[in-house]
Amino acid sequence: MKIVTFGEIMLRLRPEGFLRFAQADKFEATFGGAEANVAVNLAQLGCDTAFVSKLPAHAIGEMAVASLRKYGVDVTEILRGGERVGIYFIEKGMDARASVCVYDRAHSSISTADPSEFDWDAILDGADAFFFTGITPALGGNMVEACKNACKSAKKKGISVCCDTNFRAALWSLSDASKTMSELLPLCDLVISNAGLANDMFALGVPSNGELLDEDGLRAVGEKLRERFGCKAVALTQRETISSNRHRFSGALLVGGDFACSRVHDIDIVDRVGSGDAFAAGAILAVSEGMSAAEGVEFAVAASVLGHSIEGDVNLSSRAEIEKLARGGDSRIVR
Amino acid sequence: MKIVTFGEIMLRLRPEGFLRFAQADKFEATFGGAEANVAVNLAQLGCDTAFVSKLPAHAIGEMAVASLRKYGVDVTEILRGGERVGIYFIEKGMDARASVCVYDRAHSSISTADPSEFDWDAILDGADAFFFTGITPALGGNMVEACKNACKSAKKKGISVCCDTNFRAALWSLSDASKTMSELLPLCDLVISNAGLANDMFALGVPSNGELLDEDGLRAVGEKLRERFGCKAVALTQRETISSNRHRFSGALLVGGDFACSRVHDIDIVDRVGSGDAFAAGAILAVSEGMSAAEGVEFAVAASVLGHSIEGDVNLSSRAEIEKLARGGDSRIVR
Amino acid sequence: MKIVTFGEIMLRLRPEGFLRFAQADKFEATFGGAEANVAVNLAQLGCDTAFVSKLPAHAIGEMAVASLRKYGVDVTEILRGGERVGIYFIEKGMDARASVCVYDRAHSSISTADPSEFDWDAILDGADAFFFTGITPALGGNMVEACKNACKSAKKKGISVCCDTNFRAALWSLSDASKTMSELLPLCDLVISNAGLANDMFALGVPSNGELLDEDGLRAVGEKLRERFGCKAVALTQRETISSNRHRFSGALLVGGDFACSRVHDIDIVDRVGSGDAFAAGAILAVSEGMSAAEGVEFAVAASVLGHSIEGDVNLSSRAEIEKLARGGDSRIVR
Amino acid sequence: MKIVTFGEIMLRLRPEGFLRFAQADKFEATFGGAEANVAVNLAQLGCDTAFVSKLPAHAIGEMAVASLRKYGVDVTEILRGGERVGIYFIEKGMDARASVCVYDRAHSSISTADPSEFDWDAILDGADAFFFTGITPALGGNMVEACKNACKSAKKKGISVCCDTNFRAALWSLSDASKTMSELLPLCDLVISNAGLANDMFALGVPSNGELLDEDGLRAVGEKLRERFGCKAVALTQRETISSNRHRFSGALLVGGDFACSRVHDIDIVDRVGSGDAFAAGAILAVSEGMSAAEGVEFAVAASVLGHSIEGDVNLSSRAEIEKLARGGDSRIVR
Amino acid sequence: MKIVTFGEIMLRLRPEGFLRFAQADKFEATFGGAEANVAVNLAQLGCDTAFVSKLPAHAIGEMAVASLRKYGVDVTEILRGGERVGIYFIEKGMDARASVCVYDRAHSSISTADPSEFDWDAILDGADAFFFTGITPALGGNMVEACKNACKSAKKKGISVCCDTNFRAALWSLSDASKTMSELLPLCDLVISNAGLANDMFALGVPSNGELLDEDGLRAVGEKLRERFGCKAVALTQRETISSNRHRFSGALLVGGDFACSRVHDIDIVDRVGSGDAFAAGAILAVSEGMSAAEGVEFAVAASVLGHSIEGDVNLSSRAEIEKLARGGDSRIVR
Amino acid sequence: MKIVTFGEIMLRLRPEGFLRFAQADKFEATFGGAEANVAVNLAQLGCDTAFVSKLPAHAIGEMAVASLRKYGVDVTEILRGGERVGIYFIEKGMDARASVCVYDRAHSSISTADPSEFDWDAILDGADAFFFTGITPALGGNMVEACKNACKSAKKKGISVCCDTNFRAALWSLSDASKTMSELLPLCDLVISNAGLANDMFALGVPSNGELLDEDGLRAVGEKLRERFGCKAVALTQRETISSNRHRFSGALLVGGDFACSRVHDIDIVDRVGSGDAFAAGAILAVSEGMSAAEGVEFAVAASVLGHSIEGDVNLSSRAEIEKLARGGDSRIVR
Repeated sequence: MKIVTFGEIMLRLRPEGFLRFAQADKFEATFGGAEANVAVNLAQLGCDTAFVSKLPAHAIGEMAVASLRKYGVDVTEILRGGERVGIYFIEKGMDARASVCVYDRAHSSISTADPSEFDWDAILDGADAFFFTGITPALGGNMVEACKNACKSAKKKGISVCCDTNFRAALWSLSDASKTMSELLPLCDLVISNAGLANDMFALGVPSNGELLDEDGLRAVGEKLRERFGCKAVALTQRETISSNRHRFSGALLVGGDFACSRVHDIDIVDRVGSGDAFAAGAILAVSEGMSAAEGVEFAVAASVLGHSIEGDVNLSSRAEIEKLARGGDSRIVR
Repeated sequence: MKIVTFGEIMLRLRPEGFLRFAQADKFEATFGGAEANVAVNLAQLGCDTAFVSKLPAHAIGEMAVASLRKYGVDVTEILRGGERVGIYFIEKGMDARASVCVYDRAHSSISTADPSEFDWDAILDGADAFFFTGITPALGGNMVEACKNACKSAKKKGISVCCDTNFRAALWSLSDASKTMSELLPLCDLVISNAGLANDMFALGVPSNGELLDEDGLRAVGEKLRERFGCKAVALTQRETISSNRHRFSGALLVGGDFACSRVHDIDIVDRVGSGDAFAAGAILAVSEGMSAAEGVEFAVAASVLGHSIEGDVNLSSRAEIEKLARGGDSRIVR
Repeated sequence: MKIVTFGEIMLRLRPEGFLRFAQADKFEATFGGAEANVAVNLAQLGCDTAFVSKLPAHAIGEMAVASLRKYGVDVTEILRGGERVGIYFIEKGMDARASVCVYDRAHSSISTADPSEFDWDAILDGADAFFFTGITPALGGNMVEACKNACKSAKKKGISVCCDTNFRAALWSLSDASKTMSELLPLCDLVISNAGLANDMFALGVPSNGELLDEDGLRAVGEKLRERFGCKAVALTQRETISSNRHRFSGALLVGGDFACSRVHDIDIVDRVGSGDAFAAGAILAVSEGMSAAEGVEFAVAASVLGHSIEGDVNLSSRAEIEKLARGGDSRIVR
Repeated sequence: MKIVTFGEIMLRLRPEGFLRFAQADKFEATFGGAEANVAVNLAQLGCDTAFVSKLPAHAIGEMAVASLRKYGVDVTEILRGGERVGIYFIEKGMDARASVCVYDRAHSSISTADPSEFDWDAILDGADAFFFTGITPALGGNMVEACKNACKSAKKKGISVCCDTNFRAALWSLSDASKTMSELLPLCDLVISNAGLANDMFALGVPSNGELLDEDGLRAVGEKLRERFGCKAVALTQRETISSNRHRFSGALLVGGDFACSRVHDIDIVDRVGSGDAFAAGAILAVSEGMSAAEGVEFAVAASVLGHSIEGDVNLSSRAEIEKLARGGDSRIVR
Repeated sequence: MKIVTFGEIMLRLRPEGFLRFAQADKFEATFGGAEANVAVNLAQLGCDTAFVSKLPAHAIGEMAVASLRKYGVDVTEILRGGERVGIYFIEKGMDARASVCVYDRAHSSISTADPSEFDWDAILDGADAFFFTGITPALGGNMVEACKNACKSAKKKGISVCCDTNFRAALWSLSDASKTMSELLPLCDLVISNAGLANDMFALGVPSNGELLDEDGLRAVGEKLRERFGCKAVALTQRETISSNRHRFSGALLVGGDFACSRVHDIDIVDRVGSGDAFAAGAILAVSEGMSAAEGVEFAVAASVLGHSIEGDVNLSSRAEIEKLARGGDSRIVR
Repeated sequence: MKIVTFGEIMLRLRPEGFLRFAQADKFEATFGGAEANVAVNLAQLGCDTAFVSKLPAHAIGEMAVASLRKYGVDVTEILRGGERVGIYFIEKGMDARASVCVYDRAHSSISTADPSEFDWDAILDGADAFFFTGITPALGGNMVEACKNACKSAKKKGISVCCDTNFRAALWSLSDASKTMSELLPLCDLVISNAGLANDMFALGVPSNGELLDEDGLRAVGEKLRERFGCKAVALTQRETISSNRHRFSGALLVGGDFACSRVHDIDIVDRVGSGDAFAAGAILAVSEGMSAAEGVEFAVAASVLGHSIEGDVNLSSRAEIEKLARGGDSRIVR
């Protein structure tokens, strides 16, 4: 499978270990962003992947490009120009102390790019799938248009469109997100979302009492999304935050008439950021390969669970590792 | 509120991560000490704070000063002179392996200072509260006298005196501590203590069976302390050590006729040292602002719980973070 | 007690923290190997220990030697020569992600040494015990012969022979291991093994249903091993892998007619590698000092539990620390 | 002396050691900016200093504030608000490889601040001197106005105004700089500049043949600047770049009728950034204390030379250290 | 230009900073090897490059692959299999203390590969040049044959063959090298060598008195090599080792009838390893683009000089940076 | 040769790289002290060495012991007890910025030991030489007596006594040192000293004009020392401090009627501390092996020069490396 993803890749700056910002005199410097993460994750799973974005023509922009090339992502469609690389600062939480993320992404090259800079018919040539998330249109009106152009080009070419509804309150309001995403999701084949977020963003009305949804609830969210947007498949996650370092995580997959929930994983967390993207990559692979809902959701959730155990935004797990966990797992040392 | 704290600040040397001393070829170098920690903690909460001590007039002494100034503590009343900065080496335990602390604090500048060097009437001018712990008088006879002088000056000025009974077996015996603290606590308005320690040090006779005290037991310790020393308020902690990295922690607050216990927190620990000082700072703020016992104890305990999640002696939590946890907490990532 | 251990010491290269190999640009460099670990562990417990091996005559070989000398192991019987130091790369797992070990130990100096290079009668002069594991003979036919020579020399001198059945699938098959170990274990006084491994390797036929053995099962394994190989004592471990960072661990000891199981420890892991060697060292000391089975097994298991909490292959715990845990433990900070 | 400085403080991100950006996965994170550096440098020399700027109200902004407070700079006049902290990435050159600086400072809080936010009459109350550099007005028109307001307020109060002509080609053209600085320098008492830059920027017409100026040339630059702008004193630097790690550095000072050149220092460099600010701080102190030109220029140049030997933007040298070097120097170990 | 290089890529392990092996508990882990370095260097210069080798199918092998992919080298022709990644340990010297290199490269996957595994006609399809060094045939007889096969395939296709005579005394004797290289060099178009090494290895008889060669001597070496092996161009280096951290370096280029020597550079060294490969890459580009001897040799030498200033084996310099230095250089900070 | 050395070993705490104390939040932790350094240096040269001292019975004391054992020094005569390990903080200078050393060594276990704790007749049994420096008696009156006892015991046994006059102004005055050393040196066979220091301390009256001594001056110092104290041999160093990182260094040796000066080395420094001890170790070996003055002084000076290139107090150079440099040196990479 060849997949093209489109969005922003940011410089991620993190104090070492559990240090707070106030204590740091060093930052770990990696790169991430939902769509770039999915590109790397799928490359790890053996797919051909290309990431489309815009980065400034300077050394920090080149660092971002190299971070993708290292893991085998095709970077030839990344434009050079604009002013800056978006940055996010992240402080890792622990126990009752929440992780803190400070965004410094305004004015980035991609957020100020012109939609006409992307020749989607050429970019998507030969691709099987196109992926973006709710973050890309949140970067500004130009990016809404760029996403629409991409989706339409994909549609025209018969390329599967996949979208994760990712919502960033720092970029836009829930109502703006709802309005824009409601225009984009009808162009999508696979919709991926946190179940609670989808319920809120699109006012699906599935009763939740502020608690996690049960299987019926998840199925209801999935079916309502499918009905609302006419997509072929819906992949959902649920997360209970026991503490910063302990989460409970599960998912659901609705594909055609097939629906399944995964088992629930109790997770000791290394790095939670990007774990939703690990799920998205797993779900895209599962749906594109025609796995059953039961098999697919366990695969996507296992990908995400392993993603929580890895530093940085990207899920450097192999397909074999994910499949081992999806089948039940074995965490004895591999010698 | 303006508060003055008085005691020793030490250089704290720690092997990286979970390394034992025998494995270390590097030490993390920070500074701490109960009264200095409380000064920083209260500065984080928005109070004016000043730390009084004595440090040698050399580069390591200046590092200690700068460590306080960085967090906004007034350091103008720190004397320069004497021989050395006290040091403590700390090895972080894990699971069944206990943390190990090696003290090298004898002959420090503050422990050999003369009581007459501190002009308390001037130092305390404009302050609302004065704070010291049982460690300062344990540094030697001169410091007992200095503490008494400070308390008497505060009393004279109508400044609230707060004391944490902190006991260091490496510095003196329990009976010596009991005798000296029994002279100092009658000068205090707010007494802060580990409940079990207070029970033992002052032979309060609250039945405990070697176990944690229940609400009645905590109330009994609080009331007996108040009765014994005539203080206005008592703040107590309790801690169950499951393992080096997992504790259960709670507190109680008796203020006037108002008594309350906090809920019990299960804690995954980053750094346990200084967490008692985080409670003390929280309790001082709670009492000085006239919070109810129930509100105040949850605030002070939340401060301590967050203190466990932060590297180093000081609790770099904001008032908003503490209040969020006191109200129930939410450890989802803050974007 | 003076003990001689014989085997390979390897350079151990580990990415920092929880980084995967793909993310690493630095390796922590330590040295380890089952028999070298036991030598260091017993030196920590106050025994005279000597390690016998062969290492190349270059700077990396000298690093290995110095790593032992630092902890008081006698290194004068380590031969110099041959081609290389064996290496193993280890990536620390977390949660559902398993640790990964990549061996690069072929062609090491010890694996290509000639049995005649070791003059066991001289080497073992004055020793009370000799120790090797199932890894040494797995290094190749020469090492099988060397182990036999050593055991026979020890037998002749009345020196106690101790062997841990350690099995490395990367070095040989289970059936080859079974065949060779069946020739070596009859020369041993103390046999140490994972209970399930012994059951499988020697087809002991103790029913297990794939689950951990209960007390009867452990006793059966111990007695069957004793019966099969005629050894005086058998020490067994059992481990349940909840996740990469949480294990349940216990042991059993059969010495003469005395049998006992230890209590079961729930462990939060720092570094699991070498924890079996910590058990072996504890068991050797327990048996050599004539502890009761109950006391001995709690000691050996406590040694192993503490070994899990320490970075690197070797268990840098003191006898006092192990005894404290064996008696029940107390993980409060030691000031 | 109390001095107020005004400008931008940026987050400075640097790969470790001599790594190029392409090799980095960590950045050293410090804070710097010409005017902030001068504030810290003068605080090290015993002056009361205050830094005026605007920073966003988030954790990274607080890091910048704490970096100044740590070294004793008064931070109470730093406004909070706006969008972001300016950033500059710096890669340390070596030998023939030049250092590389990538600026990401557009849209910073200070560059977008409104001149009316600064109440200069209040801010400068009690100050003896005011300092800014050519970088502050280069941040945009608002900052030109803010600088003018500050200078006029200072003039009105009889406060000495000091300005370093610092030119940043990334911010504006030489002709724009010339035009704006020509409006600001007439408000200044002490003008500090690189001699060659001043010659170029203000077309002073001192013949230079592209080489370093001799004493006559330096005197000519100083006198022409004084004549052009009517300032009381001029401090000049000259630098010959042998390689990235070896420079030759000297200065000149014209104060009233007194003129002197310093000796020339051959420097092995640790960190060149901020060394001009070290000279500026030294020159300000020298002029404000009425040192002779000869004494003053040796002091200012010595400050700069020591600044080259210190990591980071700020010159953490004491007055005693600078004076020792100004008198001739002695680099034997100080025990 | 598209170039294919062929050889071994090794894991390079280096103690941090100037630590000796005996002091290290960490190794910086990078990857390098003459031919891999040249591939990366040419990719930095804008060429299409592919590296051909064999690496084991495990995580450490993948690290080597990713290290090349990160910098844009085509890795699709790297075979997977065999036993191990070759390793070299390098300790950085300083002043009078020489750098020390310990090789552990025997039995590597490439050294034990079969010549038939490489289908050169397919591999070289579309290439303009092929590059190898004297290290590849030194890995063993199979690699001599593989190099010959590659050269012959290149010849047949009209692809330019470039070879650096790199000699490794740890792999073979000078006479063996001389014999084998004398068979391979007649297949080459561009021969690159240290001048003194070529003089010795091929007994060229250019008088040298153990000193560096002057222009006539360099010309003689170049012409004798061309005459002996019939190559079109010869590129030579000369190096005077003042101390571990200071070298003098220059080169010469003979291309057709055009001969030129470069100026001599005095170098303060960051990392000397791989600087010869930087020269080789520069020479290949210079010759392939038809630069004059004078321009070409300054370019190649400038590439090498910059290579000395960069940590690790590869020369992460851009074409613009090299050209700037070739034209004279300017090591002022690039803002 | 077996040599016993006697003195203090301290914990050495150093900020990383060129950071000043004010910038440090980490200290490199090594151990050193003149006599301990000489013990390690001589062990590196193949001698049997034992270090005699007293250290507290806690984990930091054990770190000091292990630091010696790692390099093969016999530590069995180190007493345990007393209060603390002496500490020195060292900040590495650069260029015109001098290194700064802050001592915190008062009250250390060795400085407060009782002379009667050392049974010199037993300790020196089997030794060929005994070594101490002027630092040990400077620790206090008890240590003067201990040194005398040791020297007398050595004399009685016919063991060669070697002493370096090392002077520490932080411990005593030059006149006190002169007086005490004048009592101790008559007991010595080999006196080692900085030439200028000896000239000053013992008022030898060799004219120096504040400059380095020429050969005649060095010879005069040597002969006057021999005459004054009746020793058999005198080894002298001279050092010109160009800057913190560049020194010129040479030595002289007078042994019997044989006198020689070494060549002068220009040194680029990694770590200057302990380089005098490297000279002392070289001189002891040279004299004890009966090298000629010319050979011996080049050996001792070469040892010291290499010592400057190595981090930490001890000279981890092999005899072969020192001899290579003594013969002229070759700093090309050793492959």
